[in-house]
Amino acid sequence: MPDETQTGLETAKALLSKDAFAKHNGIELVEIGAGTAKAAMTVGAKHLNGVGIVHGAAIFSLADFAFAAASNSHGVVAVAINANISFVKAATEGTQLTAEAKEQSINRKLATYAIDVTDDGGELIATFQGMVYRKRNS
Amino acid sequence: MPDETQTGLETAKALLSKDAFAKHNGIELVEIGAGTAKAAMTVGAKHLNGVGIVHGAAIFSLADFAFAAASNSHGVVAVAINANISFVKAATEGTQLTAEAKEQSINRKLATYAIDVTDDGGELIATFQGMVYRKRNS
Amino acid sequence: MPDETQTGLETAKALLSKDAFAKHNGIELVEIGAGTAKAAMTVGAKHLNGVGIVHGAAIFSLADFAFAAASNSHGVVAVAINANISFVKAATEGTQLTAEAKEQSINRKLATYAIDVTDDGGELIATFQGMVYRKRNS
Amino acid sequence: MPDETQTGLETAKALLSKDAFAKHNGIELVEIGAGTAKAAMTVGAKHLNGVGIVHGAAIFSLADFAFAAASNSHGVVAVAINANISFVKAATEGTQLTAEAKEQSINRKLATYAIDVTDDGGELIATFQGMVYRKRNS
Repeated sequence: MPDETQTGLETAKALLSKDAFAKHNGIELVEIGAGTAKAAMTVGAKHLNGVGIVHGAAIFSLADFAFAAASNSHGVVAVAINANISFVKAATEGTQLTAEAKEQSINRKLATYAIDVTDDGGELIATFQGMVYRKRNS
Repeated sequence: MPDETQTGLETAKALLSKDAFAKHNGIELVEIGAGTAKAAMTVGAKHLNGVGIVHGAAIFSLADFAFAAASNSHGVVAVAINANISFVKAATEGTQLTAEAKEQSINRKLATYAIDVTDDGGELIATFQGMVYRKRNS
Repeated sequence: MPDETQTGLETAKALLSKDAFAKHNGIELVEIGAGTAKAAMTVGAKHLNGVGIVHGAAIFSLADFAFAAASNSHGVVAVAINANISFVKAATEGTQLTAEAKEQSINRKLATYAIDVTDDGGELIATFQGMVYRKRNS
Repeated sequence: MPDETQTGLETAKALLSKDAFAKHNGIELVEIGAGTAKAAMTVGAKHLNGVGIVHGAAIFSLADFAFAAASNSHGVVAVAINANISFVKAATEGTQLTAEAKEQSINRKLATYAIDVTDDGGELIATFQGMVYRKRNS
């Protein structure tokens, strides 16, 4: 019989598997734990901006997916209320990008996460900081 | 013969028309002026998250496109370095979202923009604040 | 007999008048309405940084005070959970800075505000975006 | 004879020692290295807000000081252009707060820093993310 954490992770995985926007943009869940998650995206033609490098919004989308995974991992629905992203390095087609989310704080109603996006050489592409509101029945 | 502003707008429009990520996600330029821009996106099945409402990253992508348009409207390549978004209201499939960007400040190297995302009833969905680094040869 | 809004404003004013940090840093409330506020600070020697211009944290403090005033104007205790600031222009000693806060969105639990900091010539010094959590008994 | 790093740290320390706003608010440099810094502030009566807990702007000021120290540690003048802070826990009078800054990215013109503010029990009070523009003669 699964324990509480296990149930939370299963609920989160089910939620993420129904994420149409992530699917449409080639974003995949790599791993998920209590308050942590990793997601990946290989930069393809559809992720490029007008100057032919990876679009900032594609990088955001990847980071946001890891953020959603980590923040929903406890089995309580977590809704993003704020996100801040700094873009520090460009990436080109063919690069595999990874977003890794870590929980910084959590209380009954709010939680915050730091997400780093790195390329396949381990170099930082963007840093993302997000806050969620945790929905409860009471 | 087009003046400098006209040339800047034409350069920006050419850049935006080659934006593969925006095209892939159904984001369209509505209008562009010196330091301003409007973009639109009708929420479709591909924009939804796991709970069936519009994905935060889709909203970000729309706002980011208006941001890119406004910041590149002067004919100098502008690269996003930071963006902050607050999500204030959900939106469902079929809703037409509009992002409107306004220039708040601009100097030789940096410029900032405020972008509001509203639904077809004029209600605020998200507010976005972005900063660009302006690339110059000198 | 004061109506509900009036009571909210009085509660907020009482709260702001006890703000020791604002007092210590020469920050004053200029006006407050439902969801709006204006605060002022004249840049003195104590507000300078190591290079002799106004400190970014002094600008933040001024903006934050207008943010607190506007968000507490409804008579419900509002606690800042996130703030984002972009610094766009320097200011020197003797300059009078004004921060003006506007409510962007409000619901039962969360509200967002945009605060512009300008100098006495009306030029933008910084833009600030903040989110509060509204504390309720229920 | 000091090497380049040593010179950078000495320049930064000289700059920070002239920071009037930090001095006025009881903020002290604890340590500084290449791209890193630690600062401290003991919450006193002057740091409190209207409800008697530590003011968000006082927490910001502490984090900002560590940010300034770390970003100026390389001997190139670094000017804050953006900062984002999430407040996660309250703190009361008498608490010693520490801000620790880490460099996340750096290039010729821009650099980003993550600053954590913790209390004397090691609990997270706020997370701060900042970006600087690095001023060069060329």
